[in-house]
Order: sequence, then C-alpha cells, then structure tokens
Amino acid sequence: MTAYVPPLKEIRFVLDHLAGMADVAALPGFEDASADMVDSILGEAAKIAENTLAPLNEIGDRQGAKLDAAGVARTADGWGAAWQTLVEGGWNSLPFDPEQGGMGLPNLLNTAVQEMWQSANMAFALCPMLTQGAVNAMQLYADDALKAIYLPKMISGEWTGTMNITEPQAGSDLAATRSRAVPNGDHYLVSGQKIFITYGDHDLTENIVHLVLARLPDAPAGVKGISLFVVPKFLVNADGSIGARNQVNCVSLEHKLGIHGSPTAVLSFGDEGGAVGWLVGQPNRGLEYMFTMMNHARLNVAMQGLAIAERAYQQALSYARDRVQGKPLGWTGNAPFAIVHHPDVRRLLMGMKARIEAMRGILYTAAAAVDVAHNHADEAERKRAGLLVDLLTPIAKGWCTETGQLLASDGVQVHGGMGFIEETGAAQHYRDARITTIYEGTTAIQANDLVNRKILRDGGAGARALLADIAALGRELADGADDSLRVTGLALLDSTVHAGDAVEWLLTAGADDVRVPAAASVTLLELLGLVVGGWQLARAGRVAVAKLAEGDPDTAFLSAKPLTARFFADHFLPRVAALRTTVVAGSGSVMALSDEQLFAA
Amino acid sequence: MTAYVPPLKEIRFVLDHLAGMADVAALPGFEDASADMVDSILGEAAKIAENTLAPLNEIGDRQGAKLDAAGVARTADGWGAAWQTLVEGGWNSLPFDPEQGGMGLPNLLNTAVQEMWQSANMAFALCPMLTQGAVNAMQLYADDALKAIYLPKMISGEWTGTMNITEPQAGSDLAATRSRAVPNGDHYLVSGQKIFITYGDHDLTENIVHLVLARLPDAPAGVKGISLFVVPKFLVNADGSIGARNQVNCVSLEHKLGIHGSPTAVLSFGDEGGAVGWLVGQPNRGLEYMFTMMNHARLNVAMQGLAIAERAYQQALSYARDRVQGKPLGWTGNAPFAIVHHPDVRRLLMGMKARIEAMRGILYTAAAAVDVAHNHADEAERKRAGLLVDLLTPIAKGWCTETGQLLASDGVQVHGGMGFIEETGAAQHYRDARITTIYEGTTAIQANDLVNRKILRDGGAGARALLADIAALGRELADGADDSLRVTGLALLDSTVHAGDAVEWLLTAGADDVRVPAAASVTLLELLGLVVGGWQLARAGRVAVAKLAEGDPDTAFLSAKPLTARFFADHFLPRVAALRTTVVAGSGSVMALSDEQLFAA
Repeated sequence: MTAYVPPLKEIRFVLDHLAGMADVAALPGFEDASADMVDSILGEAAKIAENTLAPLNEIGDRQGAKLDAAGVARTADGWGAAWQTLVEGGWNSLPFDPEQGGMGLPNLLNTAVQEMWQSANMAFALCPMLTQGAVNAMQLYADDALKAIYLPKMISGEWTGTMNITEPQAGSDLAATRSRAVPNGDHYLVSGQKIFITYGDHDLTENIVHLVLARLPDAPAGVKGISLFVVPKFLVNADGSIGARNQVNCVSLEHKLGIHGSPTAVLSFGDEGGAVGWLVGQPNRGLEYMFTMMNHARLNVAMQGLAIAERAYQQALSYARDRVQGKPLGWTGNAPFAIVHHPDVRRLLMGMKARIEAMRGILYTAAAAVDVAHNHADEAERKRAGLLVDLLTPIAKGWCTETGQLLASDGVQVHGGMGFIEETGAAQHYRDARITTIYEGTTAIQANDLVNRKILRDGGAGARALLADIAALGRELADGADDSLRVTGLALLDSTVHAGDAVEWLLTAGADDVRVPAAASVTLLELLGLVVGGWQLARAGRVAVAKLAEGDPDTAFLSAKPLTARFFADHFLPRVAALRTTVVAGSGSVMALSDEQLFAA
Repeated sequence: MTAYVPPLKEIRFVLDHLAGMADVAALPGFEDASADMVDSILGEAAKIAENTLAPLNEIGDRQGAKLDAAGVARTADGWGAAWQTLVEGGWNSLPFDPEQGGMGLPNLLNTAVQEMWQSANMAFALCPMLTQGAVNAMQLYADDALKAIYLPKMISGEWTGTMNITEPQAGSDLAATRSRAVPNGDHYLVSGQKIFITYGDHDLTENIVHLVLARLPDAPAGVKGISLFVVPKFLVNADGSIGARNQVNCVSLEHKLGIHGSPTAVLSFGDEGGAVGWLVGQPNRGLEYMFTMMNHARLNVAMQGLAIAERAYQQALSYARDRVQGKPLGWTGNAPFAIVHHPDVRRLLMGMKARIEAMRGILYTAAAAVDVAHNHADEAERKRAGLLVDLLTPIAKGWCTETGQLLASDGVQVHGGMGFIEETGAAQHYRDARITTIYEGTTAIQANDLVNRKILRDGGAGARALLADIAALGRELADGADDSLRVTGLALLDSTVHAGDAVEWLLTAGADDVRVPAAASVTLLELLGLVVGGWQLARAGRVAVAKLAEGDPDTAFLSAKPLTARFFADHFLPRVAALRTTVVAGSGSVMALSDEQLFAA
C-alpha cells in the first residue's frame, strides 16, 4: 500500500478559485476563518491524514472490526489512539458554533478536511462524518435540555453519533419502519431491530448517541408516522457522568465486501422492555429531521467517491512511475521505460485525474454554497445558494460515487496482475468504494430525488438556470484565445444543448406513464454529472490560463488545467449526446418486457 | 448465494440460430456430434454445473486454496471429488481427437459446456480451461514421444496442465523473460521463478504438467529467444507410472481479491540444479506456441466475462423478484410489490440481460468460426472463418470482460445494502470478475492486438468486411416490418458508419505519432464491442420474429428478443458515436501532459 499525500496544492486551488474561500470566510459567523487559520487547519489536517489515519487503513481492512464476547465491537489496532488524536485536536468541532464548543469555521473548510480523512482511511472517517451529521440534526431539532446533555460531548468527539434508519423490511422504503417508542414518564421506551448501523457499536469512546427512527403508538401509517429519538448506549447521569447501560445491544457485525474497519452493526433496542430514549423535536416529523442528516451525509458520501478515487489515483500513478515493463511506443527518452509512458496507461491516469478534478470542483462548489445558504446576510443570496445545493446534492452523490467506483477499478487496472493481489492495496479501494453508490440512498434514490424534487417540482427552473450559466461559460471559452479551452468551451456548450433537451423532455414525459421519468432518471443524473463536471474543469482551466497570463510562475501545475479540461471534453463530454438519446428515445424500452417475457429464459 | 440454473433454452437458441450448430456438426471430423449427442451433452453438463460445481463456489471463496506444511496447495472441501466427476465423465476430453482419447465434438459445443462450468464456479473452471489449452499446444507442437507420455492423461483429466509465462519482471513484456533451460542429455534442466501460475499447484490430480517459457543458453535476446518446455511436477516412468518428484516447488500462493478457490502459485524451478524438462517443438519458437494457448485462453476468458455476468444476473433477478420494498411507480398489480417492478431496477436488469445476450452471441459465433477454421473441407472457408476468429478474439476478450465486470457491479447494485454483505454472494461475483480484464492479456494488450495485428496489418480489410455485413443487416431490418427491429436496424446502421469512420481514421493516424493509435486503441475496442454486440442482438431478433411468424408457440421467449435488441439499440448503441468522437478527436489529448505537468499536483 502506497502512502497517501494530501494534494494540498490542488485543494487550495479549488478552495480559492472555484469555491471562493475568501468570500466564504468573509460571511457573518466565520470571523475566525482568517487566511492564517485556514492555512494552519489545512496543514495540520494534512499531517494527521498522512501520518495518523492513512497508515491505519490497511490494518483496518485486514483486522476488521470484531464483536468480542461481551458484545462490544472492537476496532482495529491503533484506531482508538487515532480517534483520541482527533478529539484532542478538536477536529470534530470544526464547523460548529463556538457557543457550543465548536470552532466556528466554514463547512467549506471542513469539507477539505473531510476529503483528507476520507482519502486517508475511508472506513475510519465514516465515524467523524456521521457524528457531525448527528450533531447537525440535534442542533436543529432537539430541545435545549437534550442539547445541553449531548451536544458538547458529541461536538468534542468524546461521544459519537449514529443514524438508525434501516430495518430488515425497510431499506429504501422507510414507510415500512416498525420500531416502536412508547411514552413512559419523561422519556420513551424504544424497541425494535435496526440493521446496517455504521459505527453502531465500537470501542473508540465511552458512549454512543443513537438517533433512532421509530413509531409512536398512535402514529399514522407510512412515512408520516415516524418520529426521531435519542437513545444513548449508556444513560447519562444528572452530573453528566456515564450511568447505566441502556437496552441497546449489538447483535452482530456484518461481514462486508469493503470498509472492514468500520463496524456495521445489527442493533437490538429494548430486549428487556424498552431502551430509554427521548423524542427529538415534534412527533411524526422524524423523516424530515432525518433528511437533514441524510442531506449532509449525501454530500459527504459524494466526497467519499472523490476521496477514494484520489487515493486510488495516487497509488496507480506511483506504481506507473516505478514499474518498468516494455518499451513504450514512440518513447524517445532513456531506459528505464516506466509504464507511465505507455499510451493506454496514460489514458487511464488522465481519465482518473480529469474526473477527480471535476468531482472536487463540484463538491467544493456545493460546500461553499452550503455556507452561503446558511450564513449570508442577504436572504435572496441564501435562497439562491440553497437551491444550488438542492440541485447539486443528488447529482454529486450519484455521479461522484459511480465515478469513484469506476476510478478505483481503473486504479486496479493500471497495476495489471499486481492489482488483483490484496497486499498491493489497490483492491481495497475497489472493495471500499463499492458501498458508496448504495448507502445514504442508492443512485436510483438520488436520481428519483433529482427528477421529482429538484427538476419537476420547480418546472425545471433551477436546472435551466444552471445550464444557462454553464452555456455562457462555454460560449465565452469558445470565443477565447486558448486552444484547449476553445475546444472545451464548444464541447461544453454542445453538452448544455443536449442536457437542455433531456430536461425539457422530462418535464412532459410522465404524462402518459409515470414510470417513464423514473426509467430515465439515472441516465439523466449521469448526463448532468458529466455536464457539471465539465463545467468545473472549464472554470479551473479559465482561472489557470488567466493566472498564467498574469505571470504566475507555477507553469507546470497551471498549464495542465486547460489540457485536462480538454481531455475531459474529448473523452467524457461526447457521452452527453448519447445519454440524451437514451433518455429521450430509450426510456420506454426499459419497461417494454412483460414479467412473462423477462422471466422466460 | 442463489443457485445457478443453466440457461439451456437460451444457450440452445444461440447455438442453433446464431452459431449454426447443425452446420458445425456437419463438418468433417464431427461425425459423432449427432443432435441426440448434443442434447445429451448439454443436459448432462447442466446437471453437473448446477448440482456439483455451483454449490462449491461459495465454499471455494470462503476457504480458499491453502499451502500445507509439505508445500502442496490444498483446494477447498469437495473440490477434489468434483474434479473426479469431470474425469469420470470424460468432460475434459470433449473437443479432442478420438484417436487420442477425445470425444471428437465441436469446439462450439465445448464452449457451451465451458459457459456452464464458468457460471457455476469460475475459480474451479479455470482448471479444465487451462488444461484444455495445454492439450491444444501439446497436440500442435510436441513430438510424438512427448504426446504419447502426456496427452492421454491430460485429455482424460487425470493430469492437469498449466501455462508458466509471467515472471516478476516479465508481465505484459515477455521479452524480459529470464528463466533458463540448459541441455542435459535427452532433456533440459530448467530454472527460474514464475509467478501468477493458475493451478500451479493443487491436490486434484496426481500430476501437473507445466508448460514453461524459458531461454536456451545461446538464445537471442527478446521475444525471439524464448522456447517452450514441458516440465512435469512428477517425472513419468517408462511404464507411465508416476516417478520422482521434479524440482518444481510451490513457494507461495497469492492472497487475491477474488477467485479464492483457484490456487495462484509462485513456482520455483530447479532449486537444486534444474528441473527436468523437454523442449516442445523448435527452439526459440516458444512465444508463437504459447500464443496458441493464449488465443484459446483469450476466448475462454472472454467467456468468463459472460459467465460471471449470467451468474450475477440470475442472482439479481431472483432477489428482485423476492424483495418487497416500496410501491413501484405506476404499479397496477396487487401487493406484494417486488422491486423487479421498480423502473430503475428494471433498467439495471434489462441492461444486464441485453449485454449478456450480446456477449453470448459474439462468443458462440466466434466458437463456431473456430470449428469452421479447423475442420471445413474448403480452404477458402477455413481461411475466412480464421480471419473472423482473429478479429473477434481481442474484441471479445476486451469487451466481454469489461462488460462482465460492469454487470457484476450492477448485480450488486440491484441488491442494495444486501449486495455489500458477503453472505449474499453478489459481492463474490464482483470480486471474481475483476481478474478477467487483466489475465491472458489486459484490455490494453487486447486493444493493441486489435489495432496492430487485426486492423492495421491487413489495411483494415477484415474490419471493413465485417462492418459491411453488419450494415447490410441494419439496412434489412430498417426496411422490415417489426417496429423494434426497425429502430434497432437504424441504430445499427448508424453505428457502422461511426465505426467505419473510426477505422478509417486509425489507418492513417499513426503517421505523425505512433503513440496516437495506441492511445485510441481501448476506446476503439469498446466501440467495436458495442457494434458486434448490437449485431448479435439484431440477428437474434430477426430469427425470433421469423419464428413467431412461422407460428412458433414460445411467444414469451421469442417476442422478448426484438425488444431486447431495441433496448440495446436505445441504451448502448448511441455510445458508438461518442466513442468515435473520442477516438478521432481525443487521442491526442491522452499524451498532452508532459511528465512535469502530470506529476505537478
């Protein structure tokens, strides 16, 4: 396994020039986000990612998390100490309100830190990611008494948080949730079984705060009868110390394809009458609250797609530079002939690099918009940014995770036979990446959200506005002086025409058969992912060309940007037209076979 | 893990109507291939695949192959007995000459049997596959004395065969081969280390016959100085009984991402002076001989792409029919609402089904052409068929294995969270499939073969002829009466135009920079894979529509064919135009970054 070196120059470029770090830092509430502070945070986070978390990635994969005889999930060697490093540095508190013990720094900066955690050790980084999500939900919806008990310790990372959503019969369909909560004095007694609970049990902290979806006795059926409860692993005494063990039992840990270091628990609540829990917010609004966590989690899982791809890319590039094999065609240099000079290895690496930069552009742009949506002084600006976040979230989650998987596979391919050997490390990324298109909503669930809530609900206004912005950039670059950006601009402009066609088609497609938009949805998501990816690369290319014209001396780094944008325009944007054809002409054929025909083989 | 049920109806349809089983069976040398015999073979093979091999697939994955204290690779529980079942049934001998103990049946029929073995248990089926390849090479190139000693036992399966090609420094680049063979009386003393030797050691049989690439003392450098040797694990006495242990030691077994049941050995030859071996054929022609095995193996690995996809599809379809979750959009039936009715699940399943049928059409067509090339009475027919095999082999190996991996991933996706849990079984297919684009030549090696030896060498004549045939079918269907086939025909015709553009571009592309065709090669392979896949589905659709018109009563099965062809036309053929653009316009941008730019991040 190759070391992970945080790509700080690249991260800094995207933060500053695509996401507008300076503007974000100037928003009300981010007074502590000085340029020095930002530098310091990035530098220190990079050290922890490289030196503390990355070396534990392979150990976690090999040892896995294991349930001991006492029913406690034990993490791999060194993981407990690594968690303490995060707690002691206050890393979990980075984006939270200083009044509650947070550092009051932008979500955008936290996003860059999370990228490094996830690249270094995805299985480990799930724990801080989910804990931050649980903090967000508690901040928004819990009453002051609950906040006072739980938030300081969750923000510090002394306790971790979980999302308890899935049940055996209730996966994507939460209407089927059966867990129950019965009022009992000042609290509730919660019972039921939850599955796929990430970090549902572990030995990193003295307590775990479960946020659990369950039904009250008089709740309506379906998703409108689900409430959210706080159910700690250990009850908390009045003085804040750890009290009695609550009825939350880890029944088993899953044996998974990847992220072995992350304990995925089956949890049983209330085996002896009921686990003690407290209602968060109002009854029957649990799904709405859970979506707060979920939307946070979706952008973070999208980040996992980028992060695992970055890790896989670093490993593949390193191998390709070292591995001597054959004499590359047209090679004019001296021996040794490293495979990085073979054209198809180069194609694989360029495809990884271009899509990684596209993903980073999308995710940091969305992260900045989250800050604007929360903190901008002007309501219209907040609203505009919020709509962009809403539209980009399913695209980012769907496209970045699907792309991350493909790139982890490309990383294996660059290694040839060595890629299939576990000790090499490339295979772990391939296995780990595979969960990202599934959890926090499959790609189909993202596509459903995109089509129904983000495009059809506003009559396509948001999508049209975004495509118009992208088309304007395409037009500008097509008329510009840089050759690579001219080609990129034309391709981008063309892709917005096809994307616009697909969106307009969608607006009327469901009139005869409501299944047709659903059949088209994942294809449309892929299409829009490519377009927004191309948009970000074009933006990066424009910035780089401008900086070079201003005499910026970092020519190797900057001059690669327009060439990388053009590579994407040549290799990925042409697919947009094909996907348009599939959306517009092919959605009917998805449902064309009857069950009898499908099952006839 | 779901049971595997051989898709006999589908296999029979492709054998009879796309591959021309009756014509193949009528070729000289296949007098024993009566219709009854074919039926019987398929039926019996299906039983073994379903009842003997498939249940051992998960056991092999879980237990793996393990090196014992004595240095013997031990296979998983039940694998030895399963091998005996194949030996006792004479299954390994199916395609070989009756004079040498074979059954004298067509390669086409053997291909159908191999599909079932590979779907049932890919890690197991590698052993008969490689043994048949070793038999082919021995039959063609070994002298009569060697044949007499080894062939009968290899054909019966009493002994197995291996290919010993790769060394640590010699992977795709065999010019770097270092293993040596020194003459010593009537034999040679072979020494060196070989890696990635599939079934390089095992406990299934009493002997293993290694075919080993090594250099003679006076051999020229590079690939023209490599010879092929037979090196048995145990020497064979004059009476055919097992003699002394040869100096072939299994140093270790690899810890792999998938195919755990298949022992992948590091073999050390001649630790105490030299392993006893015999030269096969002429000195310094080993690479040429090895390619005989390799080409056989390439079509068989292509078959693994199909086979693992079929297994993954059966499992996904079964899960989708059972799993109740949500109410599908537009669902008009009663509860329960299985997810097979959700449009995006249907899209995934249709995408799997269509590409599986495309792959089967390609591979059985190629297998029939192998028989014609070997057995046809007319030399012109043999030559024509041989050229088709040559052209289809790299396309089939590249496209079917890349596609197989994508479909194994789609199989996981259909399962949602359960797909990530190892006990479900979908993840094993995903892991197993990942080797297929690597061994027997990576996709880039296939693409290099396609571009240089199969297109450029004959000035594009073979590719043009194939595209003309496909275009003629497209035109015929576009003018026909069936709606689905009309759409399919138009899309196919359009795709041949784009494919033709790409081929013509290739013919002049390397004039200025020899790296450019190499940079385009994998994209061109994918493009041609889609076109030949669409061709096969269109052929199947045409046959099915004709049979329905003749009153064939199997309407559910047959009427699905034109609809499946159209699905492929809508969802996959549009990519051909995009790939053409990438080939023609984008191959330059592959090499556009200097090393300094690529490494600057």
